[in-house]
Amino acid sequence: MSNTSVIDIAEVYRAAEVLQNVARHPKLIGPTKLSNDAQVYLKPENLQYTGSFKLRGAYYKISQLSEEEKKRGVIACSAGNHAQGVALGATHNGIKSIICLPAGAPISKIEATKALGAEVCLVPGVYDDAYNRALELQKEHGYTLVHPFDDPLVIAGQGTIGLEIITEMPDVDAVIVPVGGGGLISGVAFTIKTIKPNVKVYGVQAQGAPSMVESIKDGQRKRLQSVATIADGIAVKEPGVNTYELCSKYVDEIVTVTDDEVAAAILALIEQQKLVAEGAGAVSVAAAMFNKVPINGKKVVCLVSGGNIDVTSLNRVITRGLVRSGRNASLTVILSDKPGQLSRVCAVIGELGANIMSVEHKRNNASTDIGGCAVDFELETRDAAHIADLRKGLADAGFTVAN
Amino acid sequence: MSNTSVIDIAEVYRAAEVLQNVARHPKLIGPTKLSNDAQVYLKPENLQYTGSFKLRGAYYKISQLSEEEKKRGVIACSAGNHAQGVALGATHNGIKSIICLPAGAPISKIEATKALGAEVCLVPGVYDDAYNRALELQKEHGYTLVHPFDDPLVIAGQGTIGLEIITEMPDVDAVIVPVGGGGLISGVAFTIKTIKPNVKVYGVQAQGAPSMVESIKDGQRKRLQSVATIADGIAVKEPGVNTYELCSKYVDEIVTVTDDEVAAAILALIEQQKLVAEGAGAVSVAAAMFNKVPINGKKVVCLVSGGNIDVTSLNRVITRGLVRSGRNASLTVILSDKPGQLSRVCAVIGELGANIMSVEHKRNNASTDIGGCAVDFELETRDAAHIADLRKGLADAGFTVAN
Repeated sequence: MSNTSVIDIAEVYRAAEVLQNVARHPKLIGPTKLSNDAQVYLKPENLQYTGSFKLRGAYYKISQLSEEEKKRGVIACSAGNHAQGVALGATHNGIKSIICLPAGAPISKIEATKALGAEVCLVPGVYDDAYNRALELQKEHGYTLVHPFDDPLVIAGQGTIGLEIITEMPDVDAVIVPVGGGGLISGVAFTIKTIKPNVKVYGVQAQGAPSMVESIKDGQRKRLQSVATIADGIAVKEPGVNTYELCSKYVDEIVTVTDDEVAAAILALIEQQKLVAEGAGAVSVAAAMFNKVPINGKKVVCLVSGGNIDVTSLNRVITRGLVRSGRNASLTVILSDKPGQLSRVCAVIGELGANIMSVEHKRNNASTDIGGCAVDFELETRDAAHIADLRKGLADAGFTVAN
Repeated sequence: MSNTSVIDIAEVYRAAEVLQNVARHPKLIGPTKLSNDAQVYLKPENLQYTGSFKLRGAYYKISQLSEEEKKRGVIACSAGNHAQGVALGATHNGIKSIICLPAGAPISKIEATKALGAEVCLVPGVYDDAYNRALELQKEHGYTLVHPFDDPLVIAGQGTIGLEIITEMPDVDAVIVPVGGGGLISGVAFTIKTIKPNVKVYGVQAQGAPSMVESIKDGQRKRLQSVATIADGIAVKEPGVNTYELCSKYVDEIVTVTDDEVAAAILALIEQQKLVAEGAGAVSVAAAMFNKVPINGKKVVCLVSGGNIDVTSLNRVITRGLVRSGRNASLTVILSDKPGQLSRVCAVIGELGANIMSVEHKRNNASTDIGGCAVDFELETRDAAHIADLRKGLADAGFTVAN
């Protein structure tokens, strides 16, 4: 290690060597049309084994354990990507792994972690309870705890992504990176700034979990009371000691995005790039789409850090994104309850160029007069202006739109 | 051209040269766990510009037009990927393009085609009406019609995918390719068999649109009365003259998959690989997952030909896939309509390890006794065995499950 930093660039090169035949190395994708103002490329770590970059740091950390430590095994606490990274890293290295999860964790995450060869320990309560149980088990059995972000070897593993970006695209101007605990951006920023200091490195947090942003603003690590965001992979209450130091030193700026912006980014990645990203993975794209960082006219790589979103959430995000962009609309039309009315209103909607996706005809709606009824339409529309046209057209035809 | 085939391998190499800086060339993805019996890799043409391989053939065809033809412009008929391929190919080459679409085509497809610079001509009626209009306009204005699959230059363009696969993976044993009109597999099979005749090439059609399967079985081109499948990109009633000939000669076997198998493949690609595929693009993966082709112990590439599925369909496919694999269940429980019953049934469901996603409590269900009521539960479950456990547990607790 050098005196000036918790990691050394040689460590990142060693990690790249170890990961050469372990990690997937998909090419940068692009140029895309995700921004009107910049040439945006994607570094698709959602296509990585286990669906996230976390494999890199966990694998490298585990590969560097002593024979004695390897014999005892590793432990981690996570309901998400880190769990799968540690499980795969340990199993590949022939090492036992125990993953502590809060008991309420989604079934799919538990099954995925088991499938990768880990022993799953379900702990009643929330994340902190699971973490405390992991510490107990660590002491009891001599396991090595693999920290999700604050370990220098984990950070070096994530840094290999920085190496790959500047090797594949030597003329990149800026790299945009999701920030939770800060392990990913610490590795990437340290690596890029060490080798190519002129490349900008921007971080992105969720507006509902801005722990690194607040910490850097305050000049010291800060612990948030609570965090809430659809980007659950980066909903971290407090940065690490090492990651705070590295971010303060090497990152140009850290910005925030809203949940609606994240949903729009997930939808854009699906529709335009055919890529599934989780909320945490899409914040970088959201920052580029919504002009949160100064990238006008630049060649930019957005790091899409992971794709592990459960499909039920995916359905909700898609629906929300469609409504926000005016491509789906819900309208409630009040009809007098007599024959022919439904047909007339459907005809008006069709003439105005909207597709009807569902109709619900309700009689017992308290807000309508006796003898009237409310009909809920789910419509496929072009944009917000089209929805305004529809409302006007229905009113012109004598119908009342109740919402 | 050679005497033995409608295309020559030199044409495929020329197409590769033309497409070098036009098409995206993402790496093969894998090995995946999509099959238990084979090492399955993916050729992700869903990540191609325009979201499908169609760009390759259309672009190459357009690039080879004479200056005179270029001046007049091109026309095509398609509501899907071919439209976008022609539009992009023409616009890149500075050529005017007209795309005839049936008037009922999805808004998103129309907008995407316009955004790529094409003039869109909406024709009342179905595909055949739009096609006839395209022929009229072609005669009237001297446009060149770009056929979606039966043109030798289009086939040569698609053949570049075969070149890329065998170049990147010289030891591949088999390639699995979606089949609609047959342009893609004709190019790929011709190229691979010409260069590496020992590599197997399998085709896959939807069970509801088996035109090439039936034609080869009959020994002559056959026109189906109707086609119906969620894989709408390969719902083609009749193979081309050239593609029929090339498939008969170069393809080892063509199999079919059901819509449910396609839905399962789309879901697996999203969850395991973070890739969005359309139905037509996922049939190759479905064939590997459901053992339709003899690939035990082999190194196999599934060509995922496209990702242009509208997100509303995507939501439906996800839901269907989850239900089929036992990971979502809908149960209707009959309760006596008195306080505390809903709480009791929810408690039983929770104890049995299922997550409740939605509850609908209905009183006016004609199938229940007066005084009783039906409650619909949408549940997140582990698998079919878990659902059976739930039914038994509810019955043991004294509840009636109505469905």
